[in-house]
Amino acid sequence: MVKKVLLTGSALLCLFPVMAFAEAPSAGMLNMGLNTLWIILAAVLVLLMQGGFILLETGSTRMKNAGHVAGKTIFTMGLASIVWWAVGYGFAFGTGENPFIGLSDFFYSAPLIGTEADPYSPTAFFVFQMMFVTISLSIAWGGFAERAKLSVYLIFTLVFSAVIYPVIAHWIWNADGFLAADGAQDFAGSTVVHLTGALAAFAATVLLKPRIGKFNKDGSANEILGHNQVFTALSVLLLWVGWFGFNAGSSLGVGDGFFAYVAFNTQLGAAAGAVAALLISWAFIGKADITTMLNGALAGLVAITASCAYVEPWAAVVIGLVAGVLVFFSVKLFEKLRIDDPIYALSVHGAAGIWGTLANGLFATPELAAKVGVGEGGLFYTGSWHQLWVQFESVVICGAFVLAASFLVLGIMKAVMGLRVTEEQEIVGLDLSEHGNYGYPEQMKKAGQNLNV
Amino acid sequence: MVKKVLLTGSALLCLFPVMAFAEAPSAGMLNMGLNTLWIILAAVLVLLMQGGFILLETGSTRMKNAGHVAGKTIFTMGLASIVWWAVGYGFAFGTGENPFIGLSDFFYSAPLIGTEADPYSPTAFFVFQMMFVTISLSIAWGGFAERAKLSVYLIFTLVFSAVIYPVIAHWIWNADGFLAADGAQDFAGSTVVHLTGALAAFAATVLLKPRIGKFNKDGSANEILGHNQVFTALSVLLLWVGWFGFNAGSSLGVGDGFFAYVAFNTQLGAAAGAVAALLISWAFIGKADITTMLNGALAGLVAITASCAYVEPWAAVVIGLVAGVLVFFSVKLFEKLRIDDPIYALSVHGAAGIWGTLANGLFATPELAAKVGVGEGGLFYTGSWHQLWVQFESVVICGAFVLAASFLVLGIMKAVMGLRVTEEQEIVGLDLSEHGNYGYPEQMKKAGQNLNV
Amino acid sequence: MVKKVLLTGSALLCLFPVMAFAEAPSAGMLNMGLNTLWIILAAVLVLLMQGGFILLETGSTRMKNAGHVAGKTIFTMGLASIVWWAVGYGFAFGTGENPFIGLSDFFYSAPLIGTEADPYSPTAFFVFQMMFVTISLSIAWGGFAERAKLSVYLIFTLVFSAVIYPVIAHWIWNADGFLAADGAQDFAGSTVVHLTGALAAFAATVLLKPRIGKFNKDGSANEILGHNQVFTALSVLLLWVGWFGFNAGSSLGVGDGFFAYVAFNTQLGAAAGAVAALLISWAFIGKADITTMLNGALAGLVAITASCAYVEPWAAVVIGLVAGVLVFFSVKLFEKLRIDDPIYALSVHGAAGIWGTLANGLFATPELAAKVGVGEGGLFYTGSWHQLWVQFESVVICGAFVLAASFLVLGIMKAVMGLRVTEEQEIVGLDLSEHGNYGYPEQMKKAGQNLNV
Repeated sequence: MVKKVLLTGSALLCLFPVMAFAEAPSAGMLNMGLNTLWIILAAVLVLLMQGGFILLETGSTRMKNAGHVAGKTIFTMGLASIVWWAVGYGFAFGTGENPFIGLSDFFYSAPLIGTEADPYSPTAFFVFQMMFVTISLSIAWGGFAERAKLSVYLIFTLVFSAVIYPVIAHWIWNADGFLAADGAQDFAGSTVVHLTGALAAFAATVLLKPRIGKFNKDGSANEILGHNQVFTALSVLLLWVGWFGFNAGSSLGVGDGFFAYVAFNTQLGAAAGAVAALLISWAFIGKADITTMLNGALAGLVAITASCAYVEPWAAVVIGLVAGVLVFFSVKLFEKLRIDDPIYALSVHGAAGIWGTLANGLFATPELAAKVGVGEGGLFYTGSWHQLWVQFESVVICGAFVLAASFLVLGIMKAVMGLRVTEEQEIVGLDLSEHGNYGYPEQMKKAGQNLNV
Repeated sequence: MVKKVLLTGSALLCLFPVMAFAEAPSAGMLNMGLNTLWIILAAVLVLLMQGGFILLETGSTRMKNAGHVAGKTIFTMGLASIVWWAVGYGFAFGTGENPFIGLSDFFYSAPLIGTEADPYSPTAFFVFQMMFVTISLSIAWGGFAERAKLSVYLIFTLVFSAVIYPVIAHWIWNADGFLAADGAQDFAGSTVVHLTGALAAFAATVLLKPRIGKFNKDGSANEILGHNQVFTALSVLLLWVGWFGFNAGSSLGVGDGFFAYVAFNTQLGAAAGAVAALLISWAFIGKADITTMLNGALAGLVAITASCAYVEPWAAVVIGLVAGVLVFFSVKLFEKLRIDDPIYALSVHGAAGIWGTLANGLFATPELAAKVGVGEGGLFYTGSWHQLWVQFESVVICGAFVLAASFLVLGIMKAVMGLRVTEEQEIVGLDLSEHGNYGYPEQMKKAGQNLNV
Repeated sequence: MVKKVLLTGSALLCLFPVMAFAEAPSAGMLNMGLNTLWIILAAVLVLLMQGGFILLETGSTRMKNAGHVAGKTIFTMGLASIVWWAVGYGFAFGTGENPFIGLSDFFYSAPLIGTEADPYSPTAFFVFQMMFVTISLSIAWGGFAERAKLSVYLIFTLVFSAVIYPVIAHWIWNADGFLAADGAQDFAGSTVVHLTGALAAFAATVLLKPRIGKFNKDGSANEILGHNQVFTALSVLLLWVGWFGFNAGSSLGVGDGFFAYVAFNTQLGAAAGAVAALLISWAFIGKADITTMLNGALAGLVAITASCAYVEPWAAVVIGLVAGVLVFFSVKLFEKLRIDDPIYALSVHGAAGIWGTLANGLFATPELAAKVGVGEGGLFYTGSWHQLWVQFESVVICGAFVLAASFLVLGIMKAVMGLRVTEEQEIVGLDLSEHGNYGYPEQMKKAGQNLNV
């Protein structure tokens, strides 16, 4: 059937031929197009999560650093995108039958279109994965907050998006990867994205040392409150929204509609995390702490990320509930250990990322493991510890690599160039010291005048 | 035709089998997948509306309550999602040939996939409707703002999302419902979602009594300004964006592209509401009031929600214009009645929700009523008062139920546990009194210090 | 095959028949539906960009004007939508074989559905293009900021969305247009949307004269800092997100998946712009200026808008890099010329819009020009100056028209009604003077009290 190229009442010469088929497209072509559409929209949703990180990080820190914190997210996202195009994608998803690293597709020459034989346009897959590396990077920044130099952000972006993240992605998500071959289940990246980011944050915060004023000489901690809970609450909402692209989009296609089930589990996990965290904080400290509740929602999302395609609804609720409780105690633990974690990355993305990855080993159903085609059912269904072991193994191996690589790189950077701004710069704030202007000039100048700064 | 499972240059073992078809899918399967994609994306857009409510409510209230107001939206959304899964959905969309309430599908066991015989994955429908109950709930909070205890939010969430909202949804949107059988037209929920939320807000604000300082002894009202109009303006934009999922998504499918027409009417209604409200305030009070204009846009959206699939473009404009004018006078009226409506929920979602539902009885075209398959044409096309009567009936019956149920539940809660924080807590603000920290700690401490608090 | 109309376990009478097909749909119908879905979702993404403009404009200006700046975006967007429906669309995309202006489809009578013979529902196309005119308008407001009267916004909205923008859109995007006939390449509107908006802003800022305090008597410039860099950073993220609808959506269909390639180029261009601008500011002024970096990201997006479907990845990077450098120097230049450009519209949308349009004449590949079906390859591939000349011509002709029309209209308005608020009103701020209340009442009253205002 020949398709009309002109619309009734609006002849659109210029833009048109791009999409018009001379004949009604085949089912294979429609399938490819439909899947490509979902992947690109999912990528856009993941990009929106960066808005969440802008608000989460600025809202959780102080006014004197707000412009710096917000701006560096845009900058490093841009830089990481280019690095991913040049080398990161090749290391992660390149071929070569190498179980440790990919070795093709550098300076990715994106195909213009998909064909009937493709499940989707390979270019869409590239764009989707590009958004993932930038998310993992934004998680890592949690450990750098309010005291790292801008140049440190620049250089660590290069290393993280060129090597550290791609290697982990290769191991678990590339068919050649050795953890993929072992049947490691990590549907949308509790380990690949969240734990990787969190452990880079861990290395950074250890090497940078705590912010001035965070800990007293007797080891007790002071609360350095973030400056804007409207920002942090909105950040959680934006992250939650974007997570539907992150998780359900990782099905990489519309197919039989299974991605809707993934979305469903995602909502239950997030909801359970928020509820559990609020209630546990209410019970333990007598106040329903907003920050804890927000962390609980995020922890629920992080935890369900690995398992969203593998578990039943009740298990999604349980996974979220545990994550919400876990994040409360994890935050307390890190404070006791005198580790400064300004954005709670270690607890939200680290502890919950580990829990989420392990949870597959408990709750994955054999039916869903078979459907996804990775690994097998978990302990509670099969009675076998095998999948739990695989999950444990993948957490330990990936964790060890990320920690080692991050400590090495940041350790060298510390020795060569220093990681931290001067004490004076930190007290004045990074907006002034690194960028020359306050992010809130009207409000800070007034405060500054009072303080005779 | 056998589909290749591996992409050129990127072999993706793990994530892959989820979506790949061994053969090119059938037209029925593609249709199911396409509709499912639209429904899930529409659900995501509706979720984004919660970002709008976070900003609308915080922007319309005072700085001392900002963290509380923002955070409780995330918490109650999470709790409502779990309640909806456990019982709400079953009461709303369960079967049983019962005209008053559904009685199946509790602890919803979501299907993994859709089949060729399904128009879409039933799981996608569940997720979409789950977002709707949380929206109606967020509307209700308008009546609780700046003085209800946190525990009240928790308990009312349970009742509202388990019973009150599901009953209304069943009556109008379940084929078994008695108002559905009567031909009540409410395409995306001017009554089901907006009026239900607004009347719960009404019961709450009456039982809670006005905020301290809102009304003087002589009955005159003071303006308690919200603290951030950037937030309220951005909230309207986010709600507007999400409303395309809300309204056009309620077509529950892509089909013949009719949802684009629904989107078109939605834009016209919203636009007309904004324009009318600004002009009427300019004319009446001599200043183009920003808050009124923003309320006008929302009122236009609320009003067009019932009718977006039933009317011609010119009627969408008229419906929006009337809504914009209506909201201006409605706000004045509630103030005169000494009813405190901090977020304008009674006017925006209540008055405009009623107007929108009734408007179908005037403007619905017979052609579109037949296309949607519900009710018949309105007075201006048929000369018959029938549809207007049906619409009136559904507003009165639903309104009576929601009012009665809300007054009952909140009345019992008031007697048993009290609804309102103490006068001292309200003056200090809910951030400190309910959660232990200011949402804006840097700004509020400074203010507090000046006031010697 | 007859499709079941009822879902297992949820009988949905009311909403249903809208989308259900009695038989499995044809490939042509599925194609139409799929394309329509993408166009509507792209329109929603473009609408989200208005959230970016709300935050960009308020964040770049002062607290005393925040409510005004944010609110007027919603109002003018609404008004422009109605004007577009009534007349603008007809002038732009109406037929009549007139190379200068369209003359049909006023008060657009939107088709309810698409047919098998349509590539998409014409109504979706209308909605998509409606969002574009509102974006161009929001760009123009950059030149009016912090000093124009509200009535000026109202009247200029009428003229701009009824005539100025539609004429340019007709010339380049309507098959009848004379620049379209010449083969002018402007895939998503570097000229049509961005340059048009920027030149209207230019006319406005020249006629309005600089803000009080911007320039000293000796010609030197003062920095009037925006009040919130979190807003501006988040604005860039929202604009970036929405730009995927803007650029990739301009393919007007899913087809062979080419829109994913457009998205890919868009990301590279934006990323390169952000990186280049930060580095150039670091190198030149010794501080990594956040505002410059954000402008660089936007300039990259603006520049890649014309060329995203015509160039190879490396060229997208180069186009973005040049845009990022260009915007830095352009801002300096306008300051030297004593032209006040509060939101940097002249540099971001003007200079980068021109660069992006011309870049096609250099970097367009013959293969992609043939695929899109407009014009031919650029200098670096063909050795021919032809396409560069066509691009240059279209910039000059369109620019001259927009400048002339804007100066004419605004000049008449200046003579008849005046464009600018009084000096006293400007100092007090537009929130109070034009709308009667501060947008930040709690924060501004405190400031006001100190100043004894």
